[in-house]
Amino acid sequence: MTIIFNNPADFAEEQFEGFLDLNSDRLSGVAGGAVAHRGERAQVAVVIGGGSGHYPAFCGLVGPGFAAGAVVGNIFTSPSAAQVYSVAKASEQGEGVILSFGNYAGDVMNFQIAADRLNREGIPTRIVLVTDDVASANEQQQRRGIAGDFVVFKALGAAAAAGLPLDEVERIGNAANAATRTLGVAFSGCTMPGATGPLFQVPEGHMGVGLGIHGEPGIRDVPLSTADDLAAILVDDLLVHAPTGERKRVGVVVNGLGTTKYEELFLLWRSIAPRLRDRGFEIVDPEVGELVTSLDMGGCSLTLVWLDDELERMWTADAYTPGYRKQSGPLVGLTAANTGSASEATDVPPNRSAAGAALAPAILDGLRTLSAVMEEHEDELGRIDAIAGDGDHGRGMVRGASAALAAAESTAAKGAGPGWILGRAGRAWAAAAGGTSGVLWGAGLEAAGASLDDSASTYSAEDAVVASSAFTSAITDLGRATLGDKTLVDALLPFVDALELKVRNGDSLVEAWSAAAEAATTAAEATASLSPRLGRARPLAERSIGSPDAGATSLALIVTALAVVQKGRDS
Amino acid sequence: MTIIFNNPADFAEEQFEGFLDLNSDRLSGVAGGAVAHRGERAQVAVVIGGGSGHYPAFCGLVGPGFAAGAVVGNIFTSPSAAQVYSVAKASEQGEGVILSFGNYAGDVMNFQIAADRLNREGIPTRIVLVTDDVASANEQQQRRGIAGDFVVFKALGAAAAAGLPLDEVERIGNAANAATRTLGVAFSGCTMPGATGPLFQVPEGHMGVGLGIHGEPGIRDVPLSTADDLAAILVDDLLVHAPTGERKRVGVVVNGLGTTKYEELFLLWRSIAPRLRDRGFEIVDPEVGELVTSLDMGGCSLTLVWLDDELERMWTADAYTPGYRKQSGPLVGLTAANTGSASEATDVPPNRSAAGAALAPAILDGLRTLSAVMEEHEDELGRIDAIAGDGDHGRGMVRGASAALAAAESTAAKGAGPGWILGRAGRAWAAAAGGTSGVLWGAGLEAAGASLDDSASTYSAEDAVVASSAFTSAITDLGRATLGDKTLVDALLPFVDALELKVRNGDSLVEAWSAAAEAATTAAEATASLSPRLGRARPLAERSIGSPDAGATSLALIVTALAVVQKGRDS
Repeated sequence: MTIIFNNPADFAEEQFEGFLDLNSDRLSGVAGGAVAHRGERAQVAVVIGGGSGHYPAFCGLVGPGFAAGAVVGNIFTSPSAAQVYSVAKASEQGEGVILSFGNYAGDVMNFQIAADRLNREGIPTRIVLVTDDVASANEQQQRRGIAGDFVVFKALGAAAAAGLPLDEVERIGNAANAATRTLGVAFSGCTMPGATGPLFQVPEGHMGVGLGIHGEPGIRDVPLSTADDLAAILVDDLLVHAPTGERKRVGVVVNGLGTTKYEELFLLWRSIAPRLRDRGFEIVDPEVGELVTSLDMGGCSLTLVWLDDELERMWTADAYTPGYRKQSGPLVGLTAANTGSASEATDVPPNRSAAGAALAPAILDGLRTLSAVMEEHEDELGRIDAIAGDGDHGRGMVRGASAALAAAESTAAKGAGPGWILGRAGRAWAAAAGGTSGVLWGAGLEAAGASLDDSASTYSAEDAVVASSAFTSAITDLGRATLGDKTLVDALLPFVDALELKVRNGDSLVEAWSAAAEAATTAAEATASLSPRLGRARPLAERSIGSPDAGATSLALIVTALAVVQKGRDS
Repeated sequence: MTIIFNNPADFAEEQFEGFLDLNSDRLSGVAGGAVAHRGERAQVAVVIGGGSGHYPAFCGLVGPGFAAGAVVGNIFTSPSAAQVYSVAKASEQGEGVILSFGNYAGDVMNFQIAADRLNREGIPTRIVLVTDDVASANEQQQRRGIAGDFVVFKALGAAAAAGLPLDEVERIGNAANAATRTLGVAFSGCTMPGATGPLFQVPEGHMGVGLGIHGEPGIRDVPLSTADDLAAILVDDLLVHAPTGERKRVGVVVNGLGTTKYEELFLLWRSIAPRLRDRGFEIVDPEVGELVTSLDMGGCSLTLVWLDDELERMWTADAYTPGYRKQSGPLVGLTAANTGSASEATDVPPNRSAAGAALAPAILDGLRTLSAVMEEHEDELGRIDAIAGDGDHGRGMVRGASAALAAAESTAAKGAGPGWILGRAGRAWAAAAGGTSGVLWGAGLEAAGASLDDSASTYSAEDAVVASSAFTSAITDLGRATLGDKTLVDALLPFVDALELKVRNGDSLVEAWSAAAEAATTAAEATASLSPRLGRARPLAERSIGSPDAGATSLALIVTALAVVQKGRDS
């Protein structure tokens, strides 16, 4: 849907005024279009054009290395001969003019009239038609021009920028067109400014193969399929129409029509590129993006240009326009980063003491207990979370705990100490669980692990307090929740406070942990009266009053289960 | 609607694989993201990131002058701390790391964990948060990051490329964020891959002011209005939140969310730019396009960055990435084209002879007759055309003839001869009428005019034959129609053949013209039995059998009326 305009009738003119204002440092508006600022050396003036609604075609493609001028018609409508003439006159530099445009009846007539007029006035003027759309006709000369416009214009612009004379620029442009083929598909039609519906509609779940760029639908509708299947249609059906000859180096354009976005085009490229390479093609400087659009039309096309040495020089040459920029300079001399360094700094755990070796199995036991208790309560935690959240807390805790346990077991098998095991378990939890609780539990365990010295000669209840405090600090630092926010912090802070107090009073770790777990359980239950203050929309927040917080509940369940397992080990 | 994918769950990963393949000459994939190839001199590594679905943010913004690495999460989802760590490790060059990202809870946690890990390992790492969205919170530190991401990342990238040390790059990044404000509007929600409907919907005929870039709707819905009104909302509401200080030079970004297309953004710019200038701002290097998108969301935003000298250097610096390229080099030394030359070569008619002066009023009489007869038959011609066309033939002929007459009268008033008058009448016809018939009539009259020598000492019936032939050739050359195609050529060729034959046989022009007009009328009527062969869809073509061609009919009406007016002058 085209939404931004004042009066629909003024759309083409007003958008062009905005374009001119925006680019006033590099081009000038003239009656009928835009003319690029020029260099010191006169060159053949390549003048391109057609209707509006195809940006960056056509006015976005004027500038060094590309067109000297662009004629701008109304939306999807040929400019008049007078407009073509005006832009060509302002663009020409004494070396002649090439008029280039897609093969549509209105454009052919109007550009031809202007060419005749310019030639009569002594300005040598040639026409280079673009006829790349294999779906539009069998004979190449009868085909319409779509995204291949970009390829032919670029070849012409590069030839002109290279200082070649008019005959040569014309020859190269025609050679580019002869070597260029496009096939496109449409997913949905575009809506003209002020219109209430699209120009055409593709049947639900289908795509139109053989799209046009003026709102014409495809020539046949086929069911929508996967990106892989779409790539197969585009590549295989296009190659049926390959030019004769032995060329195996191809320039490629995957063009989006407007609402088919970059990510989708990249995903399509992932299937197109290997398919071309499998057929023996070498891909040169591929372009994937929006180069010849059709307002808000959904769809895309594949263009191939079969390159010889000359066309490859044109295809790879620098260009600098409002809508397309390519420079080899900034990339010269760069080298690939050392991506080997991206893995963890080291996966070799530090040496562990005998005491560390003795404590490691307890850590594994604890993680096994944790994982089991989360599996046992997964559904219950999900139900609590769903009252005011997305209901994935149980699932996330199970995923995280299970990944943490697996990482801990494999790390322990390499001879790691308790701190290293806990740290790696935390990283695995964060990576696997997703969501806020996953990040917090992962960071908490990693911090707890970092607080333990794997080479210590003994471990005491104090070490458990320090580790629990580190776990808590990591979570409060990251999550920025405080008491009363209705988060796991409401159970965690009473737990760690009780633990610290009991241990300082001389209680054994088992006794202290049990008392702390009871405090956590009580505190978790008490969160039922609270209203969440972080990360919840107000209506949801109010709905949660009367139910405890899922994160506080899972923490209480875990520390309670760990109290039991410690008692078991202790007895 | 997101359409191109294989399995929706693999969308983010597969699109990134395509992106990496496409850009393998300038960046490398690592676990968690992309790392740009690096230059010889080590520099601070600016690492940006966030969820997928925002291209060119984030992976499209790595390269010289911009980010050294980008972390790529799932769609609209924070990357994990492990991903951030991995990309930062591969990006860092011994000069420290800046992690920069929009202010969202998940990103804040994960980037913070990675920063802690990097710092612990001896890699000095700083965080620069982006908080530009004025609609999201009152306090700047609480605001989320949207299109201002681009501004802050660019300042950081430019500072790093300038070789500044970590402290300075961090300071400049924070200064850029402090000076940047964004306000956006949403027109329609985006659809996640595989989902059947958009994440949210804006009520019909409304827009949501204060959009997010993760499918969040705006904070209030207001009725859709004109581009001028939208510009007023964006500029005025944004300026309420201007930073304090005296800065009057601003960098500006008008960002499209995905389906709000270039032409609409340019049209909006046409209203935004003067509104800013009226308030005393000097606009520096504005960017209008898609820089931080949200899949296929409809909407746009306005970002301003208040520049001091230092920030202006960063904002205007060169950069070269897959998704954003800016180079001052190609524009250096260019000069504006001489746009004065775009007007007609000369509007001074050549000298006319006495005979030419005598003939001129006859030309005007003829054009008056032509215009009158088209007005008289406008409705009838429209009805005939509507049977198999768009019904605008009568209207187009009236518009063209009327413009031709006006041009002829003003040209005659300047003392032009008959050929010049006809030629200018033809150009005016083509410019005003539009459509194929307008182009053909305009070109025909221009060619007829060019066939007449305004300095001739006498004019004969032969001259009328030559002019009619020139009219006919121009039309058949341009339109490529032949006898039997059911076009005006079916009436025109019999007319000009009869005219030529009669004149060659010695008939007076009046006699010859009358006979030729009769031939044209008979031939036009005979087109009723034909089926059109050019420019018509087949079903429409068959519907037209039994009705004459509108273009042939109008030609017959015109030459018949001209026969009468000649008789009148002759008697």
